[in-house]
Amino acid sequence: MNFGVIGYKGRMGKLILELFQEHNHTPVLLVDKNEIIEKEKPDVIIDFSNKDALETTIYFCKKYSSNLVIGTTALKEEHFKLLKELSENVAVVQSYNFSIGINILLDILEKYSKIFEKWDCEIVETHHSKKKDKPSGTAILLKNTINRNLEIHSLRLGGIPGDHAIFFSNEGELIQFSHRALSRKVFALGALKAAEFVMKKTRGFFTFKDILKEEI
Amino acid sequence: MNFGVIGYKGRMGKLILELFQEHNHTPVLLVDKNEIIEKEKPDVIIDFSNKDALETTIYFCKKYSSNLVIGTTALKEEHFKLLKELSENVAVVQSYNFSIGINILLDILEKYSKIFEKWDCEIVETHHSKKKDKPSGTAILLKNTINRNLEIHSLRLGGIPGDHAIFFSNEGELIQFSHRALSRKVFALGALKAAEFVMKKTRGFFTFKDILKEEI
Amino acid sequence: MNFGVIGYKGRMGKLILELFQEHNHTPVLLVDKNEIIEKEKPDVIIDFSNKDALETTIYFCKKYSSNLVIGTTALKEEHFKLLKELSENVAVVQSYNFSIGINILLDILEKYSKIFEKWDCEIVETHHSKKKDKPSGTAILLKNTINRNLEIHSLRLGGIPGDHAIFFSNEGELIQFSHRALSRKVFALGALKAAEFVMKKTRGFFTFKDILKEEI
Amino acid sequence: MNFGVIGYKGRMGKLILELFQEHNHTPVLLVDKNEIIEKEKPDVIIDFSNKDALETTIYFCKKYSSNLVIGTTALKEEHFKLLKELSENVAVVQSYNFSIGINILLDILEKYSKIFEKWDCEIVETHHSKKKDKPSGTAILLKNTINRNLEIHSLRLGGIPGDHAIFFSNEGELIQFSHRALSRKVFALGALKAAEFVMKKTRGFFTFKDILKEEI
Repeated sequence: MNFGVIGYKGRMGKLILELFQEHNHTPVLLVDKNEIIEKEKPDVIIDFSNKDALETTIYFCKKYSSNLVIGTTALKEEHFKLLKELSENVAVVQSYNFSIGINILLDILEKYSKIFEKWDCEIVETHHSKKKDKPSGTAILLKNTINRNLEIHSLRLGGIPGDHAIFFSNEGELIQFSHRALSRKVFALGALKAAEFVMKKTRGFFTFKDILKEEI
Repeated sequence: MNFGVIGYKGRMGKLILELFQEHNHTPVLLVDKNEIIEKEKPDVIIDFSNKDALETTIYFCKKYSSNLVIGTTALKEEHFKLLKELSENVAVVQSYNFSIGINILLDILEKYSKIFEKWDCEIVETHHSKKKDKPSGTAILLKNTINRNLEIHSLRLGGIPGDHAIFFSNEGELIQFSHRALSRKVFALGALKAAEFVMKKTRGFFTFKDILKEEI
Repeated sequence: MNFGVIGYKGRMGKLILELFQEHNHTPVLLVDKNEIIEKEKPDVIIDFSNKDALETTIYFCKKYSSNLVIGTTALKEEHFKLLKELSENVAVVQSYNFSIGINILLDILEKYSKIFEKWDCEIVETHHSKKKDKPSGTAILLKNTINRNLEIHSLRLGGIPGDHAIFFSNEGELIQFSHRALSRKVFALGALKAAEFVMKKTRGFFTFKDILKEEI
Repeated sequence: MNFGVIGYKGRMGKLILELFQEHNHTPVLLVDKNEIIEKEKPDVIIDFSNKDALETTIYFCKKYSSNLVIGTTALKEEHFKLLKELSENVAVVQSYNFSIGINILLDILEKYSKIFEKWDCEIVETHHSKKKDKPSGTAILLKNTINRNLEIHSLRLGGIPGDHAIFFSNEGELIQFSHRALSRKVFALGALKAAEFVMKKTRGFFTFKDILKEEI
């Protein structure tokens, strides 16, 4: 496919550019602050930059009728409104976490949280010491899925790409669900999976859950 | 309820006797090697001893039309045949593991193993150094549920009541499901749950999965 | 040995009474709220109750010239002053944690903290949901031994007897030291070790570190 | 410093080349199969390739009187003999594991194994599924340091760079020492540390332990 990357000089942008090329896809639109390399119509545009770039991203999606994969975090209601509008004309995949494993865990927690109702539950997440937000967006997703009031413990340690653990315990037993990202590449792989998914759609607003559904 | 315990002097037998009494149930039949204390008709008979006691257990179930909860391990085809026959007249719950948590994990693995098809998978189980069988019956249950050829690693360490961990990993991420029994009491609690379940039935052969189904 | 237990009806008191008797020691003084069973001179008195009992404990130590093993938590300066005074006439072992494993970890941390100076460090401790203090006394001991400003995360879950984990991480690696108490019995075992140690002394104030020193 | 890399196109070779340059060191000798780029005298030569390259490596060390950092695994007695000979004229650092964390653990185990004499002990190591040797060289180092007969469990899973865990347990408690390499980069960092160490020496045979000694 021909693809575009918004924020292609950032940490995630670079990884996406590299990985998509390894899979024989062609970059035809590269955007970063004060820089636009525009060659051809992209089939899909990938944006893992930040919410300030959203306007630019939407401009290019409309201009080329390109589908969109967006992993930008901390979006507000107004941003979602723009994305929903866009999805009437092109296909959009939006998620705060593009790891397949985390999305499987979310699916399990959604289905099994009720049975753990009377068990104590807490979450521990560990990330590299440069991560600014606390708790991680993924930990919040996990908590919202378990859907009860619980404590999230955030550790900031060295170069950990991202660990999440959910503990359930009663008087006699302890169950742990845990996920470890081995490198940031895992999110680029999820973006690729999403791009391949979105290529087969013409319009609509999707999340990573929809991608997973086709696999289970 | 009035209950009976086969092997009431053994490690699990003692725990069951104690826990059931704490919950205001009355022991009316206590059997061990060369010893029978027989007072009244038991509503349920609990047997976590060993397969050599099975004949005696079935004798009492028939004599009193008592329902049966059986956690004896290493049963053979012939034993299952006897239990199935018995279940035409009374209700029988049979399982190799009476922990609720392990049974939840088995349920998750049954439903999600397909999605992990391309991920590597291995199992690690850790038990106290006096445990004789290797791997544990529970690890075998887990492997059979995942339903593929995989390695089980058995650690025998100090006084660990029982840990089981299942690892799935691909190039970019690692998922771990793990369970820790905090004490053997957890299995007595499961036996109690099973006894309460079986009280409401009149006949039939059940496993712990049937008990769980009423809760999910 | 002949021993005494202060708070013999409490959770730890019961365990100590049981374990010491299993090892053929004889209880000759049993004290609890409003109750004193006094038979003979105890060689050692064990007190894992609470600081309000300290006066009584010291009274009996003086009366019989008994050595003392004290595991009471949350002692204040005034209590330490009383214990130091007492230790001029009898031998006293005082510690906030009587597990051998934790004391080995403390020893390691004391010797190796310097080498980890530039690594990030955080502590996670997990205890049963009925534990009232947060963080645990042991976690505070660990922190003080590492001797820097660091975060302690306290999880309160089901029936966990007590887990402690110390994480050190830099850009490229993660080291974890962790300890799991398998049951409260471990602390009674430590009290027994301390009682045997204190029997060989005539006077002086000791901590668990001194006991360990004889073993390394 | 001016440095040389043997096997500079291999996975570790590439990482070393990159990292040393990031730290403003200059590559002046690059060797791979059928390829030699020779510019200037290297102060240090780094070889993490394989034992078949050893002859070439030694040739260049002698030619330029360059110090050597060698991380090649599975060396035999004959190779060590060659390295010892070389070390009469230049400084050589040899180790099977260049991670600082693993070397700290080795140091701890050397000093504390005696106190764990009566505890059960087993090792679990986990590496990516492409790793061919089982158990890992590092697990063997750990076992030799603990210096007793114990089981090593080897998991081969997805893309795990390298986990090692040592478990000690008795009837009442479990202690775990564990190490996680976050990426292969950690070994390149260790090679850099070794190169800086070896620069200050004129001759002699050193291991990573000697480097650590200067830091503790």
